[in-house]
Amino acid sequence: MEIAPPGLKGLAVADTMLGAVRGQEGFFHYRQYDAAELARTRSLEDVWTLQIDGALPPEVPRLDPGSLRVLPEETSRFIDESARWVGDPMAALRIGLLAVGDHESRGPMLDRSAEQIHGDAMRLAATVPTILARHYRRRQGLTPVDPDPSISHAADYFRMLTDSTPSTEAERAIEQYLVATLDHGFNASTFTGRVVASTGADMAGSLVASVGALTGPLHGGAPSRCMQMIDEIGDPSSAADWTRARLAAGDKIMGFGHAVYRAEDPRGVVLREAAERLGGDLVESAAGIEAEILAVLSEWRPDQRIVTNVEFWAGVVLELVGLPREMFTPTFSVSRSIGWSAHVVEQHAEGKIMRPSARYVGPAPAIAPAV
Amino acid sequence: MEIAPPGLKGLAVADTMLGAVRGQEGFFHYRQYDAAELARTRSLEDVWTLQIDGALPPEVPRLDPGSLRVLPEETSRFIDESARWVGDPMAALRIGLLAVGDHESRGPMLDRSAEQIHGDAMRLAATVPTILARHYRRRQGLTPVDPDPSISHAADYFRMLTDSTPSTEAERAIEQYLVATLDHGFNASTFTGRVVASTGADMAGSLVASVGALTGPLHGGAPSRCMQMIDEIGDPSSAADWTRARLAAGDKIMGFGHAVYRAEDPRGVVLREAAERLGGDLVESAAGIEAEILAVLSEWRPDQRIVTNVEFWAGVVLELVGLPREMFTPTFSVSRSIGWSAHVVEQHAEGKIMRPSARYVGPAPAIAPAV
Repeated sequence: MEIAPPGLKGLAVADTMLGAVRGQEGFFHYRQYDAAELARTRSLEDVWTLQIDGALPPEVPRLDPGSLRVLPEETSRFIDESARWVGDPMAALRIGLLAVGDHESRGPMLDRSAEQIHGDAMRLAATVPTILARHYRRRQGLTPVDPDPSISHAADYFRMLTDSTPSTEAERAIEQYLVATLDHGFNASTFTGRVVASTGADMAGSLVASVGALTGPLHGGAPSRCMQMIDEIGDPSSAADWTRARLAAGDKIMGFGHAVYRAEDPRGVVLREAAERLGGDLVESAAGIEAEILAVLSEWRPDQRIVTNVEFWAGVVLELVGLPREMFTPTFSVSRSIGWSAHVVEQHAEGKIMRPSARYVGPAPAIAPAV
Repeated sequence: MEIAPPGLKGLAVADTMLGAVRGQEGFFHYRQYDAAELARTRSLEDVWTLQIDGALPPEVPRLDPGSLRVLPEETSRFIDESARWVGDPMAALRIGLLAVGDHESRGPMLDRSAEQIHGDAMRLAATVPTILARHYRRRQGLTPVDPDPSISHAADYFRMLTDSTPSTEAERAIEQYLVATLDHGFNASTFTGRVVASTGADMAGSLVASVGALTGPLHGGAPSRCMQMIDEIGDPSSAADWTRARLAAGDKIMGFGHAVYRAEDPRGVVLREAAERLGGDLVESAAGIEAEILAVLSEWRPDQRIVTNVEFWAGVVLELVGLPREMFTPTFSVSRSIGWSAHVVEQHAEGKIMRPSARYVGPAPAIAPAV
């Protein structure tokens, strides 16, 4: 029996055309394009098109998720019901996706055409902001805001959450966040969705499984923790002492260090640029705190290169545009669901179930004593 | 970069004490005990205890899921609501598990004690029959039947679905089905739940992901398809022609062949015994049809040994006891959720995220043209 490396680390479990991460170089790409540059120069809808249809507009027609954000009345009513009973937005998102899949009879991918699966991928990922925003507003006792198919996915998500139109700068910052976090190699949530897809299950079930993995604290993706840390530190002049105390207590420093990146996290670079364009006291203090923490970390582990990861500047950007902190992780699922859906389509085309083995390490089996 | 075998086949991705399958020998075991023998001699509660607490009663106290089947009023009301909007029982099961996890604030396993995780495993798996039966009866326009903590899990599942107490023989047949299908090596749904658990996510999210994988047609576990086939064939004398026609058309024969077993599927053997004890015309005709199909298959592929798999006799047993066919696959999740929960506990104790890689096979990356 062949034994996989612990945590499957470094083991290629699939072939993909969707992109990759080069941790040593601090570089990642979507299909054949530098992803950080895509975040700088392209819209979310352009990059969505790239991942689903394989090329950038105008080489292929730009996909338009606008009308796909609109839910039928009965699905909206079920989300309203779920908001009465279920508090966690990530549970509500999964419930909503299962309801959309069920209402629209989007059955096992094995029974669906390539065209239908393309439609499922677009539809389900497009409904994520609608489900999240509706559930959020109902929980807050606010009237839901219906989607506006005529505006960008980024602007409409903000609008449905806050009932206000974002400034051009805020819209672009949200969009850059969404593009920069849309996909990232073979992380645990993407892998989970692909394992479920490999059974021929439905698109909703694959995405729901991915959402579950994304909620895991070891997966990462909780930029609100970084904002809590920035609040707690307060002034950059307190950051070094704060960091040393945490390290001495054996704690991790949120927003620093990454499983793959040894050079700067390119997503953090893009989001720092976005934060700087938005400007303000928070950006200055975050930059000061970042510098102090990095200095302490390099003193603490001179042999390692511990870099700022995406969560630090993601937290600052989402805070600056005025999203509620409890929606930071759900916002991650707005973009990542697009990435997952492209992976699910790719995995389904591969057509083989992922069924590994385990090594039994217990006592030799025998017949149990009867009662 | 190390490349995994296609579908991860034969690759050991974890160590387990929970059991294994020896396909060549037609043998599988739960911990150190012959699983088919456990199905013959032990109750579901005994085997549940074995998988969760590591030993059989009376060596350790028998776990009692009875009171854990009871849902709080508000969870029941949410299941009633979901039955108004969601038809698929496997979607409703996932919605119900997410609601139970949310209502009871069963957060990420990473933040919970071993004792709490043990409680989560018991609680969530125990609620599966309650959620399924309540949803089923509401969909049928029938009054739900509340759990009776004083009877066996098998009997209570039947009771909550049908509002009638099973005969001793029927109860024992259902129980044997549940024990025989509780776990089975590292299939795709078990693997999915372990990947999600490896992120430190909550128990409900792990089980929900597993349910998603179980719905995949390539996963198997749809004994109703075998009953449809038995109905379609009708008399055993038609079985050989029917089978030859199907093979000529390139179709698979439901209930025959298995990814792992080359010798007789020991679950099928136990369930055939259970069916024979229940007796009746269906058992005789199923036995005749099985013999005819096996004869044609061995003529068709003399070099392979294609055996009856668990679905064939599982379908017959569930039909004989009078469960509705649309509940056959959901019934599989009643037992398998117990197996999954034991795997989730084991995976969590391992403490390492499963984060493999993929091999990028697209064009060399470059900077995309700006718009």
